[in-house]
Amino acid sequence: MSQFINRKENVVTEAIDGVLAASGGALCRLDGYPHIRVVLRADWDRSKVALVSGGGSGHEPAHIGFVGRGMLTAAVCGDVFASPSVDAILAGILAVTGPAGCLLIVKNYTGDRLNFGLAAERARAYGLNVSMVIVDDDIALPDLPQARGVAGTLFVHKIAGALAESGADLDTVASAARKVISGTHTIGMSLDTCTVPGSPKEHRIPEGHAELGLGIHGEAGVEQVAYSDAKAAVAAMVERLRAAMDDRPHIALLNNLGGTSILEMSVLAHELVHSAIGGRIAHLVGPAPMMTSLDMRGFSISVYPAEKAELELLSRPVALPAWPGVSTIKPVAVLALPDGLTPITPLPSRHEATRQFLLACCNVLIEAEKDLNALDAKSGDGDTGSTLAGAARALIHALDRLPLSDHTQLLRAIGQELSQTMGGSSGVLLAIFFAAAGDGASSGLSIREALKAGLARMQEIGGAQIGDRTMVDALSPALDALDESVGVAAEAARAGADLTATLVRARAGRAAYINAKQLEGHVDPGAEAVARLFEHLARHPSLDAARPAVASAG
Amino acid sequence: MSQFINRKENVVTEAIDGVLAASGGALCRLDGYPHIRVVLRADWDRSKVALVSGGGSGHEPAHIGFVGRGMLTAAVCGDVFASPSVDAILAGILAVTGPAGCLLIVKNYTGDRLNFGLAAERARAYGLNVSMVIVDDDIALPDLPQARGVAGTLFVHKIAGALAESGADLDTVASAARKVISGTHTIGMSLDTCTVPGSPKEHRIPEGHAELGLGIHGEAGVEQVAYSDAKAAVAAMVERLRAAMDDRPHIALLNNLGGTSILEMSVLAHELVHSAIGGRIAHLVGPAPMMTSLDMRGFSISVYPAEKAELELLSRPVALPAWPGVSTIKPVAVLALPDGLTPITPLPSRHEATRQFLLACCNVLIEAEKDLNALDAKSGDGDTGSTLAGAARALIHALDRLPLSDHTQLLRAIGQELSQTMGGSSGVLLAIFFAAAGDGASSGLSIREALKAGLARMQEIGGAQIGDRTMVDALSPALDALDESVGVAAEAARAGADLTATLVRARAGRAAYINAKQLEGHVDPGAEAVARLFEHLARHPSLDAARPAVASAG
Repeated sequence: MSQFINRKENVVTEAIDGVLAASGGALCRLDGYPHIRVVLRADWDRSKVALVSGGGSGHEPAHIGFVGRGMLTAAVCGDVFASPSVDAILAGILAVTGPAGCLLIVKNYTGDRLNFGLAAERARAYGLNVSMVIVDDDIALPDLPQARGVAGTLFVHKIAGALAESGADLDTVASAARKVISGTHTIGMSLDTCTVPGSPKEHRIPEGHAELGLGIHGEAGVEQVAYSDAKAAVAAMVERLRAAMDDRPHIALLNNLGGTSILEMSVLAHELVHSAIGGRIAHLVGPAPMMTSLDMRGFSISVYPAEKAELELLSRPVALPAWPGVSTIKPVAVLALPDGLTPITPLPSRHEATRQFLLACCNVLIEAEKDLNALDAKSGDGDTGSTLAGAARALIHALDRLPLSDHTQLLRAIGQELSQTMGGSSGVLLAIFFAAAGDGASSGLSIREALKAGLARMQEIGGAQIGDRTMVDALSPALDALDESVGVAAEAARAGADLTATLVRARAGRAAYINAKQLEGHVDPGAEAVARLFEHLARHPSLDAARPAVASAG
Repeated sequence: MSQFINRKENVVTEAIDGVLAASGGALCRLDGYPHIRVVLRADWDRSKVALVSGGGSGHEPAHIGFVGRGMLTAAVCGDVFASPSVDAILAGILAVTGPAGCLLIVKNYTGDRLNFGLAAERARAYGLNVSMVIVDDDIALPDLPQARGVAGTLFVHKIAGALAESGADLDTVASAARKVISGTHTIGMSLDTCTVPGSPKEHRIPEGHAELGLGIHGEAGVEQVAYSDAKAAVAAMVERLRAAMDDRPHIALLNNLGGTSILEMSVLAHELVHSAIGGRIAHLVGPAPMMTSLDMRGFSISVYPAEKAELELLSRPVALPAWPGVSTIKPVAVLALPDGLTPITPLPSRHEATRQFLLACCNVLIEAEKDLNALDAKSGDGDTGSTLAGAARALIHALDRLPLSDHTQLLRAIGQELSQTMGGSSGVLLAIFFAAAGDGASSGLSIREALKAGLARMQEIGGAQIGDRTMVDALSPALDALDESVGVAAEAARAGADLTATLVRARAGRAAYINAKQLEGHVDPGAEAVARLFEHLARHPSLDAARPAVASAG
């Protein structure tokens, strides 16, 4: 699988520069590429406690996505999944630490502990006041005393960041961080391994399985478990979390490990809220990617029994798109459906001439079924004739419940019938045509103008213009000519329909995707249907009694 | 590949309920599951123009992620990649439309056009003032007049949303939306297909290739192109965008199609800023997932020549985590490295007794090389002896540049030497030990207390406690006994070292992962080294002239 990178050696520096360019000047970096990759707040004046975090790259948006007022002061970036050097960390500490001192927030991986630890010593040799906390929130390995530091680190970043921003001193910030660390528990699950830039992907997890108890460096989970669905996955993780939780309300952090779709993350949020610990989850951060493992199709759940003051610190707004904020879990609010979904059924009425007129039109379409299907087979799936004939049969069946004596209501009612009985795009478009024509008539347009308004709306929605090889090519000139006579309208419809056989490129509808050669010489079936309707009406002047409604069946 | 869903039939409703539960009450939905899936602002009072968008699901965070004050009023959700029903859309319109009317923002896909179009007709039949705009920003198919609607839709949501929120009337909002649509151009690229819930994944794109000119429904791109790297990918897309752009400054929207890692998206942002249109990209939205295609490993770039007033509308803050905001593109700001990265080199000084003392200690370690390697082979890779002997040889080589007459400076200098010459965790830990001891000495502690401070810091960073089968097991009791005599300290070191052979479980360091049985009966090599040092010093009282520094070589 290719990746959207250039040389793997440059992936971290290029990614940092991409983030910086898009930061609008909020972030800057230290000189010293490629070995020193330190991102810091551009507005930093060393007047408060500085927070420095970091570690290997590949966990984006951690850590540079959380550099900004109210969270981190600086982030030190190593290569993908590799600790930054002591020199790089020291550069970061020296660049941001003022009289108030500096807190290093380090995830519990050996390389990070050692390198941050030694950098802290070197910084102290300059008289700087440096403290360090080690995050070890992972509960995947319950009996190993050195648990890994994973997504729960975000709680530490936010609470310590808000405190430092408020002007708290180093001891206060550090002890608040240690309190968060001691109460935060995280567990992760993944369906697949991640893709490390420049390395072949390891296929370790068999289909139908998941790894439970993950770190964030692609290392194998503590166990492979059978995977069935989202509900069971969350239940298995919650079972482990529950053992570490007391009865207080907790805040949860639902972290996308990188490659899980947002749709899935939302399903997981739903399952978490309804899980065995759902009643104790009062607040949620996410779902969002916060501490990722490149493109890993997995997620993690962190929980912490935040006290009121800590919740307030977590909830303080920050201008960092990577921080999704804290939301209060509430039951889903459901509103009643609005009135009006069941269309108003017009009162049926009798009008024999209109009835005969509609019947005749329907029969024209029923008789044309085979011919229209044959034409449609040239460009589509050969069902235009059947679709129209089916709609005509349904309309005949419905005649007795139509408001035949009120032509304005009748147009809307026909639209309504078609929308319920005629499938596919053409059914919807004809329904729109009749509905919009009915609207036009009810707002005072003549029937001819109302029909033209219906055509305009149908074209707006369907997108077909004259010459696009659709029914519009016959219907539009016919309506234009209707004021003269039905005969002239029929001639115009026929001319328009015949012209479609010369249109080598269909630009709307399904025929748009068909090779031009296949279409040449064949009339568009929709246009043909329109032409046949008008021609039939022209041959039977007795139907003219229903004149105002004539074209409504076109 | 499994997915984090339950039954595919429920994926959309469960995902919606997950988002709603985590919305903190900001969002609600209409009744009518499963057919009617309409999410709306809980604070909506119908006093302004309502904005309704939606379409198939699978594009998260679109569309419900953009429902909120200043963007959408409601979103209507279909099944994955399928248009919602006319009834569902109508329910949405009826639920939110007041006297100011409603704008439907529809992406140009046939199903959406038709269903939103017919729903609009049915809403108009109730006298509601409904307008509709159709977004067609995709330039993948330049000669097809009905371009698809893709991620550029976000510009429309934001500008129309900010206008509507400000109280603009429907015509103003609709024409602003149409202006944005007419000037927005988008193109997408992907390295892989997406995984549709419940369907087998199509493997369509061969390794080393990408699809260029994508929709957002998993349909094949317009062309498969050879893929080399991120730079060439952006260049190919920019080439097509450039043809549609004039010389004005543009805002770009960099959209993650779902499965691209944030690291990659940042590299792509870097490439976009430095591309042939980089000089015309004045502002950027993203990179972020905004209009996705499930888990597709791809991205899209949208551009729009926003005028000043439009930029202001785009930049107005909204409380929606899915909207990443607008940033101004600026050159990367680089700060000079801080002073202090090159450690202060202490002035060399002579002190013959100290020199002999250090030399003797180094020789003890050099002589122990094979024995310590053999012990390490029981639990590690058998190189502890070589690592310590190498460090000892380097220290001998460095003796003439050390501040031998100033024991406080000497401790720091030894730490510095070890950090530069001794690889691995143990080198860093010893460097921390000596640096912290030097710090302690310089702040007035006795040498013995300073060494104990160094040990405490080394334990804090390394995590080892007494009984964890490390050098601490010998060093800690030796330092405790040092005030009595070197002889007592040596006995304590030996007793501590021997005890490690009985510790069946190592809890820190690499040996923590080894089976207990393998370790039993073997002394830890680090503890053995410490014991041998103290024993040597006890046997050679002449070295006691350098007494204050004795244990510093332990």
